Amino acid sequence: MMRPFDVIKAKRDGRELAPDAIAAFVDGYVRGEIPDDQVAAFLMAVCFRGMTDRETGSLTAAMVRSGETLDLSGIPGRKVDKHSTGGVGDKTSIVVVPLVASAGVRVAKLSGRALGHTGGTLDKLETIPGFRTELAPADLIAQVSRIGCAIVSQSARLVPADKRLYALRDRTATVDCVPLIASSVMSKKLAVGSDGIVLDVKMGSGAFMKTLPDARALARAMVGIAREAGRPTVAVISRMDEPLGRAVGNALEVEEAVRTLRGEGPPDLRDLCLAVGAQMLVLGGAAPNPQAGRALLEDRLARGDAARKFAEMVAAQGGDVRAIEEPSRLPRAAVARPVVASRDGTVTAIDAEALGNAALRLGAGRRRAGDRIEPGAGIVIERKLGDRVRRGDPLAVLHTAEAGDLEDAVPMVQAAYQIGQNAPDRRPLILEIVS
Amino acid sequence: MMRPFDVIKAKRDGRELAPDAIAAFVDGYVRGEIPDDQVAAFLMAVCFRGMTDRETGSLTAAMVRSGETLDLSGIPGRKVDKHSTGGVGDKTSIVVVPLVASAGVRVAKLSGRALGHTGGTLDKLETIPGFRTELAPADLIAQVSRIGCAIVSQSARLVPADKRLYALRDRTATVDCVPLIASSVMSKKLAVGSDGIVLDVKMGSGAFMKTLPDARALARAMVGIAREAGRPTVAVISRMDEPLGRAVGNALEVEEAVRTLRGEGPPDLRDLCLAVGAQMLVLGGAAPNPQAGRALLEDRLARGDAARKFAEMVAAQGGDVRAIEEPSRLPRAAVARPVVASRDGTVTAIDAEALGNAALRLGAGRRRAGDRIEPGAGIVIERKLGDRVRRGDPLAVLHTAEAGDLEDAVPMVQAAYQIGQNAPDRRPLILEIVS
Repeated sequence: MMRPFDVIKAKRDGRELAPDAIAAFVDGYVRGEIPDDQVAAFLMAVCFRGMTDRETGSLTAAMVRSGETLDLSGIPGRKVDKHSTGGVGDKTSIVVVPLVASAGVRVAKLSGRALGHTGGTLDKLETIPGFRTELAPADLIAQVSRIGCAIVSQSARLVPADKRLYALRDRTATVDCVPLIASSVMSKKLAVGSDGIVLDVKMGSGAFMKTLPDARALARAMVGIAREAGRPTVAVISRMDEPLGRAVGNALEVEEAVRTLRGEGPPDLRDLCLAVGAQMLVLGGAAPNPQAGRALLEDRLARGDAARKFAEMVAAQGGDVRAIEEPSRLPRAAVARPVVASRDGTVTAIDAEALGNAALRLGAGRRRAGDRIEPGAGIVIERKLGDRVRRGDPLAVLHTAEAGDLEDAVPMVQAAYQIGQNAPDRRPLILEIVS
Repeated sequence: MMRPFDVIKAKRDGRELAPDAIAAFVDGYVRGEIPDDQVAAFLMAVCFRGMTDRETGSLTAAMVRSGETLDLSGIPGRKVDKHSTGGVGDKTSIVVVPLVASAGVRVAKLSGRALGHTGGTLDKLETIPGFRTELAPADLIAQVSRIGCAIVSQSARLVPADKRLYALRDRTATVDCVPLIASSVMSKKLAVGSDGIVLDVKMGSGAFMKTLPDARALARAMVGIAREAGRPTVAVISRMDEPLGRAVGNALEVEEAVRTLRGEGPPDLRDLCLAVGAQMLVLGGAAPNPQAGRALLEDRLARGDAARKFAEMVAAQGGDVRAIEEPSRLPRAAVARPVVASRDGTVTAIDAEALGNAALRLGAGRRRAGDRIEPGAGIVIERKLGDRVRRGDPLAVLHTAEAGDLEDAVPMVQAAYQIGQNAPDRRPLILEIVS
């Protein structure tokens, strides 16, 4: 068996590590036998040398073994999971989970909370009065068996190694490294016993991956891990040059998700939800191909089945269903203030990350884990890429509990918009499917 | 001021770090404010990205600041230091220090102990009965002022950061990294207030650096650090394809050093000592150029001044001078056993590192810090590179206290020798001077 030193040195020197070497290294770390400093050196070497699919597969499997797993075999039928790499205004899960369930494929979705400029599905759903995200495994299984879906918080007992490794990566500048991102994401997916996984990988100014080659590398790494684990998995790479939809902020996004489930949502959000959902139907055996899956989902939206499924899920998790029928019952921030165009022209660019940071400033996100979120705060986008504007037209409306927050946020939003003369090229939302 | 995270990230991304950023990082580590894991990630990033002279200069300066320094200004005249990167059979310091002092340049040499397959000057000198290597700074200064030289053990109060960093590097596979080796060596040299430094950099199978480009890179990095510190420094790169001289092992090497000081030593050892010593005379202002320095040193050897200076130093440090006049008074191992040639031919290669490991097996070195050394153990080489042998001729004689050690060592020595038909090219010992 290789000593920890030999594992670090082999990776440093660019040699591929055998599965048992990676397993022993991660197991030793989890048991406290290998110190943080050796793991930090290893992680940095991985950032320079990368990892093969076999290596990320072994790393991910060892991370999964570090904790409990969630056995979904008690739920009848096929269960398909989804994961988004995160972005500004990304409320896809809130739409896709009930949408796919309404077409007959079950989804037991474990989600996270907001950190930094991207939001968290749990924080969004918790703006619905009474909505509970902490479900015991048995209750989760019962709910998904009965109504077909649930969105709950991830148990800390799943993949404890990821939490420790992430904290170590966060202080050693080894977070933005494809094999480590991929193994972190996939460890949490593989710890849950779904029959397939659809990965929603974002690319662009509002996403973690800024370029298509980077997004493709991450998608391939994640799909490679899934292949090593024998779990059918597809990645949908989509463009995020501007926030998805028009709402950024927790209650604002729930309201938009509900509209989308009713068939009234913004086209980009609807399009992405259909693309991701169609792949989920294929993996779940409810459609022979993505085209058929998409048609089935469009039908479910048109019939109102998807919206009804969401209401069912909200009710099952203790939420006040009236809040989704009458959005005025959702929390609202006290102050609303438009940001207007300073000249005539066309919106040629919107810096989604800057809008995410402005929303954070307004109280919609968390700077640090544990920070309180202002549920009604955020930004509603009035002009998207390619829209024509005249001087004085509202570009976006800022929502906040405290007018003082506007001082920083208004110029951030103003600066996030570029207004020029030439309309930008219309580019497709969905860029690639990696499987 | 950059946070530790930013320092790691900048190095990972290949940006040059400003001196104050490196200083704050090392100071923070020394004060216990920056954890081992962040430093480990930084060190691994350095292994991949390297460091500029300005960076290694800042790193080394910060390491020097971590502890006490040794002020030699109380010693009259110019003081020149030397350092060897270490090798098998390297007794250069024992010859060079008194040799140079006999030509009028003072040397206050701080040395280390054996670890692994390379010997330690202190262990060698301590085989002389009574020889003391632990001198208080005031006594060191008094001795060098009076007789011109001393070889003593390095105080743990000098460069404590190096000890901590080395231990961390040792467990994180970041030892063999040029800027880190260079800063470690130079921190200990710069902590001692000499007027100049000559670096004896070995290259070849018996040295840490196996190729000329590697040895040159290390020499340049060390000279670059010295330049940043304003300390005149020259590196002599020499070949170590076989052990230096004929003796490997502590008392055996002292005996050979004494013969060399009397002008009777093996030509390679004599040649290297003259080359290194000549550079020391130039830096010390006792010779206008290396050629003149060499001539001066040859004269001192021929007159017996160098040997007398060594005897003076031994006496000053409490050693029994009779042991160097009559080598039979030095410790001898109980068992001596020749290893003989298995065929006729010419010695075409000698694996110096393998001989070093065989000597370690015989008791001449330390596997771990703190191990006891057998002072008389070691190997005397009877045939060097290019020598003709007949089957049955002794290649080397092994000395050990316990016959049982021979079982492993004999085949190791046998395997270290290659005997072929064609004499190897005669290659120069001194390859390059880097300044």
